[in-house]
This record gives sequence, structure tokens and C-alpha cells, in this order.
Amino acid sequence: MPAANQFDRLRVVLVAARNPLNIGAAARAMSNFGLLHLRVVNPYEAAFREARSAVGASALLAGAEEYKTVAEAVADCAVVVGTTAVRHRELQHPLRRLEYGARLIRKQLSASRVALLFGSEKFGLSNAALSHCHWLMRIPTCEANISMNLGQAVAVCLYELVRDPKAARLPGKPKRANSAELERITTTLLEAMRASGYLDRRPIADVDERIRRLVRRLDLVADDTTAWLGILRQIVWKLRLGKTSAG
Amino acid sequence: MPAANQFDRLRVVLVAARNPLNIGAAARAMSNFGLLHLRVVNPYEAAFREARSAVGASALLAGAEEYKTVAEAVADCAVVVGTTAVRHRELQHPLRRLEYGARLIRKQLSASRVALLFGSEKFGLSNAALSHCHWLMRIPTCEANISMNLGQAVAVCLYELVRDPKAARLPGKPKRANSAELERITTTLLEAMRASGYLDRRPIADVDERIRRLVRRLDLVADDTTAWLGILRQIVWKLRLGKTSAG
Repeated sequence: MPAANQFDRLRVVLVAARNPLNIGAAARAMSNFGLLHLRVVNPYEAAFREARSAVGASALLAGAEEYKTVAEAVADCAVVVGTTAVRHRELQHPLRRLEYGARLIRKQLSASRVALLFGSEKFGLSNAALSHCHWLMRIPTCEANISMNLGQAVAVCLYELVRDPKAARLPGKPKRANSAELERITTTLLEAMRASGYLDRRPIADVDERIRRLVRRLDLVADDTTAWLGILRQIVWKLRLGKTSAG
Repeated sequence: MPAANQFDRLRVVLVAARNPLNIGAAARAMSNFGLLHLRVVNPYEAAFREARSAVGASALLAGAEEYKTVAEAVADCAVVVGTTAVRHRELQHPLRRLEYGARLIRKQLSASRVALLFGSEKFGLSNAALSHCHWLMRIPTCEANISMNLGQAVAVCLYELVRDPKAARLPGKPKRANSAELERITTTLLEAMRASGYLDRRPIADVDERIRRLVRRLDLVADDTTAWLGILRQIVWKLRLGKTSAG
């Protein structure tokens, strides 16, 4: 994740939002992803008031700046990016997929303030609002249903901004059992198989090698080996006990 | 984006969801990202009924399968992944960041059915539900506010699943103006500067080279050159006309 002060240069701008739940959801997603500066342009007054006074409304929402026009809301930003679901409006702007657009925005944020505009739930950004944008960005939704809920669109865009490509490469896997541990389990399992009479009923050629491979295919987590060994040893103990008492 | 039939193997499972808006939002995000199979486990009955009967409720929601238990909902899935906001529950499971987890899920989907579980808005997945999971996945939210809205969490997870890492690398830039076009603009701009008397008032050494570099720094789009040339030529024409009538 880029340095916090980098994202401090981002302004999320909701233009003519009309649903208080969506304004609240946008603020919540910003808070989830560590973005602090919300601007609203010409919201339906009642919706904005309701969102601000809702239970659990964030400090972020309380600190949101209100503007009458898009021009005023983006005046101090060097780059203005509009979001759109539409692919083939007579596009006067370069249109970039979110994956690439977010990369450009991160780059710009290292030096300049960037405004990210979201339009109203019903109509998206107007042509007038779009004319303030340097370029447009779209979320890669399906042709069958391109239009996203506003709160969800904000969440997805901000996630892509803060997502860490390196995290996708990290294995993050728990430590696997080592060969000595696997061999102890193999040996004990073989003891249990013998003690249970399994091998008498179903003789296996090269049984040691086969069971050794069988155990290795389990891809056992190191922390689990003690538990497995305990279970198997108890079984072996009980089987031998039974044999003794039966014998 | 991986082949459609690959994602056809994913089951999105909402466990004990209680808000009809969230159930609807989850379905909408699925539809946005082309995922078709929704399962609900033990939803608050009224909420599920309300979500299904809501205006604009999708066919996807109408076709959602209802189960009494998590065990039944994931019975036909080879891999079960739980989502969680919590980082340090006494985690009995490997916990993976979304960026990496989604990669693993895509890999599994090429061969097997995968269930992706989301818990209730209030409590997340219970320990009983988690015990059905092979591993857990978390969205990289900020420490200050880790808990996401359910509909937004579903949207973000599904976006990461379908996002195309290659799209982040594509330039997607509009065609830039070529050198001949830039030179025509340079020449005409110089004419305008001369005709306006700018150079008489502020003589510039090496003016041609300086203006040539100035124009190149604009990073002009090819499609815009005609408009810029038109504007400049009109200015030059008007400036000369004024000179003539004044002269």
C-alpha cells in the first residue's frame, strides 16, 4: 500500500447523489480503505442531511465538504477522473479500465491532488460534469448488467486504488510439515495399519513406499503433525491393547 | 477475465444475512461481475422474502437456493473459503489477503466447485460456519475500520476475482499527435506570437526551439490537432486583418 500521505491527496467527489444510504456507504468504504476527504456537489439536500445524521455516520461524513458546482469541487485538483458505466457514449475522453486507471491515479497522487468523481445513482455524471474530467474510468462489469450500485462502485474503485499487487504474489502459506515429521506419521500410520489387520486383509506390494507417498500427498501443515501423531499413536496403543486382552 | 464456465463453478453463500438490502446488493454485485449462483443459509426469513420481492430484484435472486445449514450449502463444493474482517481471532485457519486468495480461488475453479462464504452483517461467520472452511480470506481494510458493509464486501471480493491483471498493464492511451502535426502547431503558434506583437515586447532567445519544446510538452492527442490548428489559424488571420486595417 502506498504511503498514507499519498492517498491524502485524493478527493472523492459525489455529484448529485440522491440516496442517503449511498452517501453513507461511500463514506464507509472510504473509511475502510483509509481515504479521508469526501466532497459532495449539489446533493439532494434532504439526503445529505439524513446521511450525516444517520446512526453510526462517520466523522468523515461530518467533515465532508459541500460545493455548489463541479468546477468549485475540483478547483484545487490537478487531475480529475470521472467514473462511468457507459462504454460508448460519444466519448470525448479517454476511457480506462479500473485496473489501469487506478495505477495512473496512484502515480499522479505521488505529486498532485486527484479528484475522483461519481455521478448520481440514476444518471451517472452529466456531460457538463464530464467536461471537467481529464479522463474517465470504468469498472469491468458484464455487458448484461454494467450499472453498479453507487456505494459498491465507490468500494470497488477505492479497493483497486489501495490493493497491493505484491500481496497477490506472496505465498502466505502456513509452514508445511518437514520430512522427519512426515516420516514419523508414515511410520505410525503403518503401525496402525498392521495392528488393525488392514494389511492382512488387503496386502499391498511396496507398502512402505506407497504409504510414504500417500502421506506426502496430504500437504500437511507443520502445526498439525502433533495432533495427527497423537491420534495415530492412541489408535496404535488401543489396537495393541485390544490384541493383548483378546490374546 | 477467465472463461465464463470457470466462474460458473463458484457458489456465493450468504450465511444468516439479516438485511434485505444487503441480500439484494450481493445479488446485484454478482450480476455486475457475471456470477450466477447464489446460496443463502438460514436467512432471516422476512429479509429474504423482502429482498426477493423488491422492485428490480434480479432473476439471480429469484433463483437463489436456500439451505438450512452450512454443511448442506457447501456439500457439493471441493473448496470452501470463508471471508472475515477479523485478523487475529484464534485463527484455526490459514488467512489470506484477498489479492492472493482470489488467485487461489481462480486456480481451483478451473477444476472444482468453490464456495465463498459471507457471514451476517453483525457477527460475521460463526465458529461453526468457519469450521466448514478450508481457509479464510480478508479484504485489506484499514485497522481503524476493518468491518465492511456486506454488499460492498461481496462487490470487492467478486471484482478481485474477475479483475484482469493484464488490463493494468495495457496502455489504452489515445493516439498522440505525430511530429508533423506538432510542427504545424508550433509554426502557427509562432506566427500568432509574432502577429500579436508578443515577441516585440518580450524577445526570446532561440524562440523557435523553445516554442517547439513547449508544444511537445503538451502531450497532444492526435484527434485534437485539427481543432488547435483551426483556433490558431483563425487567431493569426484575425491578427493580420487587424494589422492591415490599422495599417
